[in-house]
Amino acid sequence: MSIPPIAVVILAAGQGTRMKSKRHKVLHPVAGRPMLLHLLAGVETLAPERRIVVVGAGRDQVEAAVEGLGVDIAVQSEQLGTGHAVRMAEPKLDGFAGDVLILYGDVPLVSAATMQRMLDRLHADDAPIAVVLGFRPADAAAYGRILADEEGTIRKMVEYKDATADERAVDLCNSGLMAVRGADLFALLARVGNENAAGEYYLPDIVMLAAADGRPSAVIETTAWEVAGVNSRAELAAVEAAWQQRRRAQAMADGVTLVAPETVWFSHDTILAADVTVEQNVVFGPGVSVAEDAVIHAFSHLEGATVARGASVGPYARLRPGAEVGEEAKVGNFVEMKKAVLGAGAKASHLTYLGDAVVGAGANIGAGTITCNYDGFLKYRTIIGEDAFIGSNSALVAPVRIGDGAIVAAGSVITADVADDALGVARGYQEQKPGWAARFRAVMAERKKAG
Amino acid sequence: MSIPPIAVVILAAGQGTRMKSKRHKVLHPVAGRPMLLHLLAGVETLAPERRIVVVGAGRDQVEAAVEGLGVDIAVQSEQLGTGHAVRMAEPKLDGFAGDVLILYGDVPLVSAATMQRMLDRLHADDAPIAVVLGFRPADAAAYGRILADEEGTIRKMVEYKDATADERAVDLCNSGLMAVRGADLFALLARVGNENAAGEYYLPDIVMLAAADGRPSAVIETTAWEVAGVNSRAELAAVEAAWQQRRRAQAMADGVTLVAPETVWFSHDTILAADVTVEQNVVFGPGVSVAEDAVIHAFSHLEGATVARGASVGPYARLRPGAEVGEEAKVGNFVEMKKAVLGAGAKASHLTYLGDAVVGAGANIGAGTITCNYDGFLKYRTIIGEDAFIGSNSALVAPVRIGDGAIVAAGSVITADVADDALGVARGYQEQKPGWAARFRAVMAERKKAG
Amino acid sequence: MSIPPIAVVILAAGQGTRMKSKRHKVLHPVAGRPMLLHLLAGVETLAPERRIVVVGAGRDQVEAAVEGLGVDIAVQSEQLGTGHAVRMAEPKLDGFAGDVLILYGDVPLVSAATMQRMLDRLHADDAPIAVVLGFRPADAAAYGRILADEEGTIRKMVEYKDATADERAVDLCNSGLMAVRGADLFALLARVGNENAAGEYYLPDIVMLAAADGRPSAVIETTAWEVAGVNSRAELAAVEAAWQQRRRAQAMADGVTLVAPETVWFSHDTILAADVTVEQNVVFGPGVSVAEDAVIHAFSHLEGATVARGASVGPYARLRPGAEVGEEAKVGNFVEMKKAVLGAGAKASHLTYLGDAVVGAGANIGAGTITCNYDGFLKYRTIIGEDAFIGSNSALVAPVRIGDGAIVAAGSVITADVADDALGVARGYQEQKPGWAARFRAVMAERKKAG
Repeated sequence: MSIPPIAVVILAAGQGTRMKSKRHKVLHPVAGRPMLLHLLAGVETLAPERRIVVVGAGRDQVEAAVEGLGVDIAVQSEQLGTGHAVRMAEPKLDGFAGDVLILYGDVPLVSAATMQRMLDRLHADDAPIAVVLGFRPADAAAYGRILADEEGTIRKMVEYKDATADERAVDLCNSGLMAVRGADLFALLARVGNENAAGEYYLPDIVMLAAADGRPSAVIETTAWEVAGVNSRAELAAVEAAWQQRRRAQAMADGVTLVAPETVWFSHDTILAADVTVEQNVVFGPGVSVAEDAVIHAFSHLEGATVARGASVGPYARLRPGAEVGEEAKVGNFVEMKKAVLGAGAKASHLTYLGDAVVGAGANIGAGTITCNYDGFLKYRTIIGEDAFIGSNSALVAPVRIGDGAIVAAGSVITADVADDALGVARGYQEQKPGWAARFRAVMAERKKAG
Repeated sequence: MSIPPIAVVILAAGQGTRMKSKRHKVLHPVAGRPMLLHLLAGVETLAPERRIVVVGAGRDQVEAAVEGLGVDIAVQSEQLGTGHAVRMAEPKLDGFAGDVLILYGDVPLVSAATMQRMLDRLHADDAPIAVVLGFRPADAAAYGRILADEEGTIRKMVEYKDATADERAVDLCNSGLMAVRGADLFALLARVGNENAAGEYYLPDIVMLAAADGRPSAVIETTAWEVAGVNSRAELAAVEAAWQQRRRAQAMADGVTLVAPETVWFSHDTILAADVTVEQNVVFGPGVSVAEDAVIHAFSHLEGATVARGASVGPYARLRPGAEVGEEAKVGNFVEMKKAVLGAGAKASHLTYLGDAVVGAGANIGAGTITCNYDGFLKYRTIIGEDAFIGSNSALVAPVRIGDGAIVAAGSVITADVADDALGVARGYQEQKPGWAARFRAVMAERKKAG
Repeated sequence: MSIPPIAVVILAAGQGTRMKSKRHKVLHPVAGRPMLLHLLAGVETLAPERRIVVVGAGRDQVEAAVEGLGVDIAVQSEQLGTGHAVRMAEPKLDGFAGDVLILYGDVPLVSAATMQRMLDRLHADDAPIAVVLGFRPADAAAYGRILADEEGTIRKMVEYKDATADERAVDLCNSGLMAVRGADLFALLARVGNENAAGEYYLPDIVMLAAADGRPSAVIETTAWEVAGVNSRAELAAVEAAWQQRRRAQAMADGVTLVAPETVWFSHDTILAADVTVEQNVVFGPGVSVAEDAVIHAFSHLEGATVARGASVGPYARLRPGAEVGEEAKVGNFVEMKKAVLGAGAKASHLTYLGDAVVGAGANIGAGTITCNYDGFLKYRTIIGEDAFIGSNSALVAPVRIGDGAIVAAGSVITADVADDALGVARGYQEQKPGWAARFRAVMAERKKAG
């Protein structure tokens, strides 16, 4: 059997009123990535021929978010129901006769595997005209019910309010997601009416219309969390939590120690090797990779960072994009790295800012060291050689190079290069004023007394 | 109907032994405010004519906590039961003939709306002599039960230990909170006896005494969490958690994104606008207001601070009382602000202390900048002009003014004003000692070998 | 009755494959201590005559972990079941006729009290030959079942797969932990066969073998969490969570306020006095003691530290081993202490590193102060006298002594001692270049425009 081409239609025209947000609902992030982009990333493995996002209000925001991704935008100006929304995609599917997968921009967790199962079912021997994704929630509440036989052939789909008591007792519910044969989709949609309380055109109506023609549809099932929808900030938080919980379980199954799993937050693309330890309260922003035996200590925040084997990060370390921590290197408390490389075995243990810097292997960066990388207009680089020693509370004014094996004396403000193996010192001379402090105290005490 | 005057009696004479605390139980805080003050704030909307707190041990602490609030203190020297405690308030209610609302200092979450419902019920057509606040806990356990008809008229109130099996099967329980007609209260209390196992005078006994006179009482219901009591630190934590959970839900309903709601802690007076984003692990102390589109990044701690529209705070930012972050301004990691204003668009991105400072719009505060605002006796101000640029690792010794558009060279210790558009530099000259580091290493290696 | 001697056999030969770890399973930590050491610490109160750990792969790691503790190591080269594993300990128990307590290295939470109950039951009047530790899990699942009479005498022990439906309906399960009369143990084990699906020798089989001889065994019960086993990182996290939950409850019962208990992590040896307050997100590493009325603010991390009465720590304080915070002293945000003493009433409030330092009572350490304690080879001490005042952003280059009542001017790099009551200053002179900043901006703007 040749695999038919696939088109993905993502409905994203809902108002999202309950979000109370200027941001378009489908652009709110889960695991550090807008919901819509989760779906677009998910469908990649299906190699869809076309991808169409149907938007209503907030079209500009959505267009900006998918710019350069080759996604078509269709517009639903009026909110006339899901069936109407899919019809808006028809011009973008002109001449397309493959499978159409209908997703929802606010149902972001559906996996590529589930999508594939829907498409596979569409081409099973009984050749249903459509495949509906069903689920069995803990509380079926007011979801539409699906009545199906053991093979998953749908006998009836019914809205909750129209269902009999027997039908309501069925706990298989309709998620709204569907795979439909493209050749039939729009002809069916054209027959869907809006004679209902809301006056809307409902996509699921095509199932019963086709069934009346003797062309049944099928249902496959998935877990409730996978089709959880986001209509409010609370539901957004719930979807985030569901995603995080599964990601944490996966990390532990992969051999990562999470001392307190519920306090570790991953991004969609976080990579952790086996025998990595992550302590309490760690946030992984996008773009982080951590190699084996590294320890990410409590209260650390990583984004766009690479941590090599056996390195120690934190507690209270902030790794920003471009941070590269070398093997067995150490980034300690209240240390920030940005576009900075810390060589193998090098240490920046306390109260330090390394920005636009390259630190050689084995170098020691003293407490309170600041790379002064910015003059208000441009950024400049600091190069620190292998085994160099930067005394505490030093300022390194970039562009500057500290040589291999060089030493910078504590408290120095270094504005010129320090040669290999040299000592660089730049600080004031110390004076002492005997008894000054005692006199000062007397004066101040007097002044305080005077008010 | 004219609204009768209201008196609030708050019982706070319990020993609180299980708290194991030197601090009076009702002064332990929930959401950053002592429990007693939660109640006193709650009753404000009722505009009570009198407020009386009945205390036993720890009277001094309670008096200090309510100083200046116009609250009367009554003393219950011996712990002879809730009925006896209310009687201690009688002298403070001399000549008062309105409604008496009886609350408990260790039941802090009861809302003003619920109090109002109690008072309204007291003046319903059936004119009960008292209104009891009931609740239905998940586990009714040993609570006293309330048997009432459908209109809430109480047929019987019974202690658990005296209840029959049928009565125990009732799940409507007595919270202890009551609204009583003041004209009848003390006459009824005078008739309450102490012939029970504990030898105590029980306030709820007035209900059955009045009923025997043909004057029934009524019950209204509330949720279990609203009448949760605090007798131990664990219960204190549970009440705090219940409060936080509701506050988080409210924030999300208001259009605030909480990435991980369970890790955000509010104070009783926190104000967040719609489209504010709060990341993981943020603590709001009292007195914080955040405007729309601001982002509070992970691991931030705010107290007495104002954050304007579009500002970015954290991660790891500490805003202390008097911190004002301007529109689109940025406070970055390991930065502390105290009595400090950061102008619109200004940035203090790393490892900085801004105390008693005013930073003009558009200014840039380099990493490691410290305002030296204290000489051991007095605090002094630092003024930084608009668009000024403070080089990294600088110390600004207050009182000092950096002019508009001025630049401070990195690593400077600035003790005198810098004029508008001027450069201020104050650092040592750099020397280099070639080969010194290599010789030092050789010496130290030798010394280490020698032990 | 004389107390018979006790031998403890800890089985630790499992492969731990599901951990996906290079580290031996029993060496993974719970509450900051390897699981095996939890058990060895627990048995101390039993004063065992012998302690034998049976290891398979990873012997070297286990030996290193118990070095110096006087523990015998027995080796089980092949994984032939628990019965076989215990037999490997036989040479180490030569001539021993006391009680043998059999524990599992991956079941770390069993308490000394429970162990003692097992031994006590072994010497009850009915003198069972062995005592099995049973539990009733929420989901009995596939655990082996124990059928016993009311006195706990075991009638039958049966593997789940061999159990009848009636037997499976019993919810008393076998934890595997046993106390056995040593005089009989190895004779019974020698009779255990391996005719089962796995071809393994099962320790529990001795119970039915002895029963067949007319020598019954007994069961005592404990809670499910106490016998929770660790076979994966997820189970490790679950055991950690169970331990923490109980520890938090204990702290609150002891009179400690935990504002958000679920965000505080203890170590096995944390000591907190009554009326200590611990705010949100605090991590206690090993070796911490906090005295009454001290407050540990949010986001603090303590290890090997002592905090005296009334002290204030954090938020964002990092106390490392050897940190001693005096009475009413204050360690503020972004402050790190290591081998450092902060005297009574002294303050280090912001962005400071105190390493190898002694700070006298009443001293004030300004923001951004760094003790420069390391030259790349050795560590040196900084001594700061009573009531001294260290101006902000100072570097104190150790070894150095700041006298009692002395003042260090802000921004100084101090390399020589400052006498009592003297002022020490060491900074550059300030120059001003009028208009320089304006010219610089013009040049840079031009350069930026030029690209």
